[in-house]
Amino acid sequence: MAIPVTLGIDIGGTNSKLGLVDSEGNCLESSTMPTHANEDISVFIGHLMEEISKIREAIEQEVEVLGVGIGAPNANYYSGQIEKAPNLHWGDAIPLAAIVKERLQLPVWITNDANAAAIGEMKFGAAKGVKDFVVVTLGTGLGSGIVMDGDLVYGHDGFAGELGHTTVDPNGRDHTTNRKGSLETYVSATGIVRTAFDLMANRIHASRMRKLNFEQLTSKIVTEEALKGDRIALETCEMTGKYLGTALVNTILLCNPERIILFGGPTAAGDLLLIPTLKYLNQGLPIHRRNKTSVVISSMKGSNTAVLGASALAWDEMEKVKV
Amino acid sequence: MAIPVTLGIDIGGTNSKLGLVDSEGNCLESSTMPTHANEDISVFIGHLMEEISKIREAIEQEVEVLGVGIGAPNANYYSGQIEKAPNLHWGDAIPLAAIVKERLQLPVWITNDANAAAIGEMKFGAAKGVKDFVVVTLGTGLGSGIVMDGDLVYGHDGFAGELGHTTVDPNGRDHTTNRKGSLETYVSATGIVRTAFDLMANRIHASRMRKLNFEQLTSKIVTEEALKGDRIALETCEMTGKYLGTALVNTILLCNPERIILFGGPTAAGDLLLIPTLKYLNQGLPIHRRNKTSVVISSMKGSNTAVLGASALAWDEMEKVKV
Repeated sequence: MAIPVTLGIDIGGTNSKLGLVDSEGNCLESSTMPTHANEDISVFIGHLMEEISKIREAIEQEVEVLGVGIGAPNANYYSGQIEKAPNLHWGDAIPLAAIVKERLQLPVWITNDANAAAIGEMKFGAAKGVKDFVVVTLGTGLGSGIVMDGDLVYGHDGFAGELGHTTVDPNGRDHTTNRKGSLETYVSATGIVRTAFDLMANRIHASRMRKLNFEQLTSKIVTEEALKGDRIALETCEMTGKYLGTALVNTILLCNPERIILFGGPTAAGDLLLIPTLKYLNQGLPIHRRNKTSVVISSMKGSNTAVLGASALAWDEMEKVKV
Repeated sequence: MAIPVTLGIDIGGTNSKLGLVDSEGNCLESSTMPTHANEDISVFIGHLMEEISKIREAIEQEVEVLGVGIGAPNANYYSGQIEKAPNLHWGDAIPLAAIVKERLQLPVWITNDANAAAIGEMKFGAAKGVKDFVVVTLGTGLGSGIVMDGDLVYGHDGFAGELGHTTVDPNGRDHTTNRKGSLETYVSATGIVRTAFDLMANRIHASRMRKLNFEQLTSKIVTEEALKGDRIALETCEMTGKYLGTALVNTILLCNPERIILFGGPTAAGDLLLIPTLKYLNQGLPIHRRNKTSVVISSMKGSNTAVLGASALAWDEMEKVKV
């Protein structure tokens, strides 16, 4: 008998990934391709169809593809479109769900990458069996996906969960949106690098990071140096946790999640990030709300995580129809 | 044929109200009684049962009571308890839903007053037909009820929607929870009075309010003076809107509601409150999120509003069971 699977597609600014995933979250076959973000969308679609054919041929088991889930920056669940994604130059509103549906003749759902990560955690990860939780994704920016009573919160036009745009310091760092001090200017891969340079400017400690310029230093290097005991890098982790913990206070007061799951490269810092996050989170909450929400690092690791999230979206939507 | 109704009970620190409400939101009979907040809970229950008998006798139409909805400070929907309500001295955890259910032999639901107001707006008020909205209640404190995709957001243990505890100024005004600068120390009946005195201390304008002490000045007087053109009172409204608008930015970024409904006495200021709220709200949002959420003042007015909210809770729960 054919194994039922969904096709998960994760679209990034540089590379996109796709994979066939069964209902237990096993990725049976996967592939990576360039996103062709600077060419016409048709180039991407053509290449995507080739890659889909390839993985369907490569897979050893007999499978039946039931649906398609897509995670993409600025993707809108309601409209099925990618809307003004800063790293994709395909146009202002790309009806990607409709295009893929027409080509594959399968049901297609699309959402932004943070929402896909949240659904991935719910189906296959740290939020299994948890009905109220928030996933915070740390990448170039900061995204979040909010699940309440088992359903992803989209809001009235699909833009809920924009935690990265909440303000932590009204006189703080510049952001591309012309607003000052939004959370993602502090808590994200780029924010961490900015904090490290801020601290190098203000502290006198020696640091190997002083040999690197803005284009060379990455949040990965900051994390590695912190784990080796570099004082500037350690303080960077502490500051990152302080900003994140303080910002999560509002999320807890408004949404009251049981769990907050941190996801993405910078979480490799582990306790160096988690301990200050919890400390400032609990400091900021009224006493009766303290220590009632756990904060954990995602257990979903490896190169297929984003594909699992996208495929989980399709699994989740198909289950809703059944109910 | 008997008209189906629900019994709505709103418990306040001083007085409680109850009423029989039909499915269209008409309050067919109602009553007010003292809450006896300083006596044993049994005194309140005894008096409540008497009042229920009275309104059932007084009502002209033949009615069938299908269920009971209760709105009360610090009431927890999940546990059915009133938990550590600052103005009710009945104990730390009063299982009010169970007590009333046992006495009346009817299904009973309980929630906090802000959540009851939100369900009231959804069934009978400014949120009819709106699936994603937030109600902000301005009274002694500030409460909020969040509805997403047609369902009230309770979170994992019933404490979602604590907007009043979010921080607007970490170095700001003292609060009974020992935290500084929470929204309700600025935006509430008491917060408005504090702002008026702060401005009288800092400005040199004449004002009739200067003849009143802290115990005499009320937010109602501030509103009345503002409508007459008093400069201190006008600036108080402006500041209140500024704090509220700034605080609502996070709510919109996280929950993306279609509408925000302001409810309670201080909304009598009308545009004097609404215009600065909208101004600072839109200033705080990234450009792509501006002017996508409307902010309105509740159309539910009159002495029975809180009873309608409580009764709407029962109507809403009974409808859920039918679906």
